[in-house]
Amino acid sequence: MASTDSPGNGGRRGRRPGDSGTREAILDAARARFSGEGFRGATVRAIAGDAGVDPSLVMHFFGSKQALFVAAMEFPLDPAEIVPRLVGPGVDGLGERLLRFLLGIIDELGEANPMLGLVRSAVTHPDAARMMREFLGEAILDRIAAAIDADRPRLRAELCASQIVGILMARQILALPELAAADRELLVGIYGRTIQRYLTEPLASS
Amino acid sequence: MASTDSPGNGGRRGRRPGDSGTREAILDAARARFSGEGFRGATVRAIAGDAGVDPSLVMHFFGSKQALFVAAMEFPLDPAEIVPRLVGPGVDGLGERLLRFLLGIIDELGEANPMLGLVRSAVTHPDAARMMREFLGEAILDRIAAAIDADRPRLRAELCASQIVGILMARQILALPELAAADRELLVGIYGRTIQRYLTEPLASS
Repeated sequence: MASTDSPGNGGRRGRRPGDSGTREAILDAARARFSGEGFRGATVRAIAGDAGVDPSLVMHFFGSKQALFVAAMEFPLDPAEIVPRLVGPGVDGLGERLLRFLLGIIDELGEANPMLGLVRSAVTHPDAARMMREFLGEAILDRIAAAIDADRPRLRAELCASQIVGILMARQILALPELAAADRELLVGIYGRTIQRYLTEPLASS
Repeated sequence: MASTDSPGNGGRRGRRPGDSGTREAILDAARARFSGEGFRGATVRAIAGDAGVDPSLVMHFFGSKQALFVAAMEFPLDPAEIVPRLVGPGVDGLGERLLRFLLGIIDELGEANPMLGLVRSAVTHPDAARMMREFLGEAILDRIAAAIDADRPRLRAELCASQIVGILMARQILALPELAAADRELLVGIYGRTIQRYLTEPLASS
């Protein structure tokens, strides 16, 4: 709250001149730090320093490092809200819930899906791959792993991620024809069972 | 055999000067045509024309359009040999056979895996995505679909592809830590069952 730009005293009552410029400066600094140092390496303190503001102002504007990342990458959804909502009712039926949500979002967003941009960057730039790995890990996979009541919860969450990224690649980027044209509820059933197996069934076949 | 460069009369007995230059000219022409017009649109006749040789010489050197593509893209393996070998014993156990082969190849090739280059291009260039979709379709997915004795064989082959591309993305490009470190035989078991389900089990859950 040391910064003179802090809206702490009045920001909630209305937007003051300069707020949006400050917000943009923080987002620019965040994008640069996240790209260069990964999600984990980029600290709120360093981002605030680059933007010339106090770290508390960054937290005031965005609430958390994850939310700052979501805003900087222009995600339409915040995993900190979505994942607990999907995981909340428990792991029973989580596979289908996850798939129905994901396929809905994929179809609705189409080419505007920011996950596509992130996948494109990750595939071509190792720094972006690290950034995506670290953000996915903390924002999504750790949260799913925490809900799993079975051995190797984090591996199970990563198995789910491998099928979900594969759906995005096959249906939207490669556009394999039968998969792209398939009825969404059929795919919810097929892939939902795969995800459910990764979440709850024994991993070893013996 | 109209071309004066044709090795038809003596090529089998030894390499003549000019053969490797001709071969390179054909490969260059193939890469350009495949990139611009996709795998399906690029004809052997057009590629031969660009390289200034007779189409029969292209077939003499490479044997098929698929094999020409494999050579032009510098694949270390030809799906026309690999897929029938994996599919040959039937669909029983095909999931595990496919996964054991794939994970072996992925680990062995590492960063030199030409699939990574193809995925990188496909993700960033729609023309390359089309080329990969068409080649994968004819060289791999149609062959697997032909071996499937169940409803919607081509959709099933595409479901398998979605999990396999996802493994490549998650294990090698994103390098999710537990998946990257997991015992290969454990993954053969887990993913093999997924692929087997896509190949042979009922698609609808009802």
